[in-house]
Amino acid sequence: MNRGASLHIRKYEMKRATKFGPTERTTLKRLPKRAFYERKIIYNILDEGFICHVGFVDTHHPVVIPTSYGRIGEMLYIHGSASSRMLRSLAAGIPVCVTVTLVDGLVLARSIFHHSMNYRSVMIFGTANVVGDEKEKLHALRSFSEHVLPGRWADVREPNKVELKQTLVLRIPLKEASAKIRTGAPVDEESDYNLRVWAGELPLRIVAGTPIQDPRSEFEVPIPSYLNNIMARFRA
Amino acid sequence: MNRGASLHIRKYEMKRATKFGPTERTTLKRLPKRAFYERKIIYNILDEGFICHVGFVDTHHPVVIPTSYGRIGEMLYIHGSASSRMLRSLAAGIPVCVTVTLVDGLVLARSIFHHSMNYRSVMIFGTANVVGDEKEKLHALRSFSEHVLPGRWADVREPNKVELKQTLVLRIPLKEASAKIRTGAPVDEESDYNLRVWAGELPLRIVAGTPIQDPRSEFEVPIPSYLNNIMARFRA
Repeated sequence: MNRGASLHIRKYEMKRATKFGPTERTTLKRLPKRAFYERKIIYNILDEGFICHVGFVDTHHPVVIPTSYGRIGEMLYIHGSASSRMLRSLAAGIPVCVTVTLVDGLVLARSIFHHSMNYRSVMIFGTANVVGDEKEKLHALRSFSEHVLPGRWADVREPNKVELKQTLVLRIPLKEASAKIRTGAPVDEESDYNLRVWAGELPLRIVAGTPIQDPRSEFEVPIPSYLNNIMARFRA
Repeated sequence: MNRGASLHIRKYEMKRATKFGPTERTTLKRLPKRAFYERKIIYNILDEGFICHVGFVDTHHPVVIPTSYGRIGEMLYIHGSASSRMLRSLAAGIPVCVTVTLVDGLVLARSIFHHSMNYRSVMIFGTANVVGDEKEKLHALRSFSEHVLPGRWADVREPNKVELKQTLVLRIPLKEASAKIRTGAPVDEESDYNLRVWAGELPLRIVAGTPIQDPRSEFEVPIPSYLNNIMARFRA
């Protein structure tokens, strides 16, 4: 292969590695400037959030279930819904849409029409498959735990064989995804800027309160350092 | 009609008014004690949240879109996605699943298996229809606004005819819904309570930061009192 062709392929692969190719269903038709396809941007949103909404079709009607998730490289892991309906559908692998939404603030414009929210959301289209392999399952469960509670896994009892069997883990390869992001001040009609009304942003964020020790605790255990780190992540 | 029959009907109507009848798809098969069907409980969750995830089926694959919503009595209103795909499907009225999730905290157990989250979520099944009537549309838009920003509507410019035409509003009658709620401490295996590990809850909540006035503001406008009230709702 000549050097030019090789460079071309490397460029293509880099492009492929860093960006999701927009598809018919991930292409934003309205407000396309809010759409992003870079893996880095999408992964940052996925890594900051910890609740996703999983949509699937159950005999013609849509079902949306909130659940936690983990990411390992280009693979998203979710806990399967324990609803037997979903379990039945899963055997063959079903199409899912997984959406993660971070709300960053309320946007107060001078007209009702231009009120908005600042947010970062990711929409993933793919197929969910059951993780059968016990090693991958344990790896995925660890990713759920470390995603929300880094450091916790090493401190508590790991799942035993029975618990592993009772847990359904699904794997969704990250192949088709997009992010939608709005930031900053309101954008009003030019003719409205002379209205004498307060306009701007009210930032919102998730904050941790004081940890509540389980009343059934048999020991006085100090708050572990990793929990302090987690609290720092959710600081006001 | 005799008095007995009339009483029977009144009792039936009261039951109907205060509780959603569990259906095949709103009945929780796993952890049924987390399921609630009382309208009051469900409406409280809907009124506290302000983002829902709307699921619908687009030519066999599921789509989940985050959006704001409003409630007027037994009617939920959402903004329609501007995606033309959805618009096309809507003409006939399409089945939707609307899910609202409030995360109240992380639950740290003594085993990985029993880690959980405290949350309150509502799942609504129904059919979305386009609101054509201009008066109902304005009423619904006002409910979106007053839901998140009570007091704002009276302070800013109302939508004009052109803006109303550009806005798609959907109506979903609240007929089939359930709530799922988890609260409190972790529940561990009895044999794990002797593990010397911190266990309990880390409460989480949404908190407002300092309002950021639009840099393009032409006037010094003090923060309105209703915005102070809204901030009080999101206080740390």
